[in-house]
Amino acid sequence: MRPMKVADIGEFGLINELARQARARTGAFERLHGVTVSIGDDAAAWQTDGVQLATTDTLVEGVHFRRDLSSWPDLGWKTLAVNLSDIAAMGGVPQCALVTLALPPDTPLADMSALYDGLCEAAETERVAIVGGDVVGAPVVVITVTLFGAAGAGPDGRPALMLRSAARPGDLIAVTGALGGSAAGLAAAMRSQRPGAGPAVQELLALHRRPRARVREGQALLACGVTCAIDVSDGLVADLGHICEMSCLSANLHAAKVPVHPGVRRLFPEDALRLALSGGEDYELLFTAPAQTLAAARRALGDGLTIIGEMTTGEPGKVRVLDEGGQPLALPKRGWDHFAS
Amino acid sequence: MRPMKVADIGEFGLINELARQARARTGAFERLHGVTVSIGDDAAAWQTDGVQLATTDTLVEGVHFRRDLSSWPDLGWKTLAVNLSDIAAMGGVPQCALVTLALPPDTPLADMSALYDGLCEAAETERVAIVGGDVVGAPVVVITVTLFGAAGAGPDGRPALMLRSAARPGDLIAVTGALGGSAAGLAAAMRSQRPGAGPAVQELLALHRRPRARVREGQALLACGVTCAIDVSDGLVADLGHICEMSCLSANLHAAKVPVHPGVRRLFPEDALRLALSGGEDYELLFTAPAQTLAAARRALGDGLTIIGEMTTGEPGKVRVLDEGGQPLALPKRGWDHFAS
Repeated sequence: MRPMKVADIGEFGLINELARQARARTGAFERLHGVTVSIGDDAAAWQTDGVQLATTDTLVEGVHFRRDLSSWPDLGWKTLAVNLSDIAAMGGVPQCALVTLALPPDTPLADMSALYDGLCEAAETERVAIVGGDVVGAPVVVITVTLFGAAGAGPDGRPALMLRSAARPGDLIAVTGALGGSAAGLAAAMRSQRPGAGPAVQELLALHRRPRARVREGQALLACGVTCAIDVSDGLVADLGHICEMSCLSANLHAAKVPVHPGVRRLFPEDALRLALSGGEDYELLFTAPAQTLAAARRALGDGLTIIGEMTTGEPGKVRVLDEGGQPLALPKRGWDHFAS
Repeated sequence: MRPMKVADIGEFGLINELARQARARTGAFERLHGVTVSIGDDAAAWQTDGVQLATTDTLVEGVHFRRDLSSWPDLGWKTLAVNLSDIAAMGGVPQCALVTLALPPDTPLADMSALYDGLCEAAETERVAIVGGDVVGAPVVVITVTLFGAAGAGPDGRPALMLRSAARPGDLIAVTGALGGSAAGLAAAMRSQRPGAGPAVQELLALHRRPRARVREGQALLACGVTCAIDVSDGLVADLGHICEMSCLSANLHAAKVPVHPGVRRLFPEDALRLALSGGEDYELLFTAPAQTLAAARRALGDGLTIIGEMTTGEPGKVRVLDEGGQPLALPKRGWDHFAS
């Protein structure tokens, strides 16, 4: 029997099918977030009170993913995770999401159901309700998620945000977790063309395919009084550059202090630092704060954060990557640019 | 000199360029809607209090538009307008928008600036602030807008919504404006392959290219006590079918009462009724209400609405299109389905 294609059930049929799937998995979170109108009407509606956050991210077939290197559940997971990471970088609380799928008519129905499996799995980790979206025809698969959240609480318990523009001269720069794993995983998979390769590669590939957004860490940092953060999506140096641009400051980044993922050091000993500095898609949180605030953050997060530099006055947007002797290292400033590749 | 392509300035350059353009045109509306974080951070943020609405719509090149039949400013206008129409169908107040552009690297920069011109023009009509979004690479142009709004006010002045699911047996069915113009405009343009054709075609084409969302009408209907509405995007019969499905009712639709656009009658005398019943993309409001509420709506909107049928018990989702003798007309139930075309 020929597998069902999305064209066989049409746009409305597919919307209804995916809505059923999303409701079964995430419908229970609707009440939690005051959702009063979900999938099936002209717009979604929910009760709010305070500060609303919204972010959107898109994955395009052939640009952000290849079907031979990612499974559909992994893609579903990742599309939500990259949005969760944006809310995490503001210290916010994720609430509900709209999902838009642009699809070729011959896309197997089972693939979209598998995509939604991963999407719902990621939604469940943060109690996000999928409350609507759109399905349209297209020559390649384009997945867009818009995620809403509420602001988290600052040290005084009132709604607060972490912003890219809030760094101050003298702030220390710190990052959660370890870097380079996602880019190394992708590089290893593309090199071998066999994603089934050894456990070391599998571990890194998992970081690429199923990144974990640092939602709880973001909220904890905000509660400690951190006011400036960004998530590492474009690459450490590029994202620190965004903080510098928005805060009209420079930064000194000490290369030897950067927490390179141990698996990256093992598999790519020559290239480990470059992958950690500019690989991107780590979805760790990069933030700046005065030493006292950072000490509080360390008490809250334990060993999960590393101090890697400091903010300085000087040319706005300038990131100086320094070696152990304090001498500048030459490195590409930019991270991913899909127009350029 | 070769015209600048988006690849020449990169994703970040383009985001900054379009952000500048959007800020200049719609930045003044940010304060109006309590926006505290706009383009340039991980997420947008705004103050809310009450009921938040969100909707998203996507236009795909080659599926929803052809570059030879639509200008970039028209496309920008339309992508926002179709979202405004969703908020209008809930009786809501549009507030702010996220815009995602998926683009081939060789897209001329001037085209995207022209797209934003139309987008900003539509935003200005309803005081919508463009507060963020995303730019990514893709093989064809895909434009996604997510629009946020606040709930409008019901007869008692408190926040209320119009829903597809709120129709009751015995409700009259009414529609704003005239139907079929958008589909007729597109048909005329495709037939002649010369969008420059006569003024009658131009008038219809304008309806296709620059639809006006019925935002004020939606709010007025809600204030009159109307509780069930949808916008005519898929086609009158298909959209009435959505009301019937969600309200678990049937509907009688009197074909002779349907307000066919006069230009459609002139240009397509044989096909006018079909275009009005199932052409789609009219973005008028279709709603149901008891006779007394409808009388109030007529006082509020004047001649701008037409009673075309009534809701009945019976097979859920069933729309009966009746001729002047009350006999059923055979018509396609479905409107647009881009997987099927």
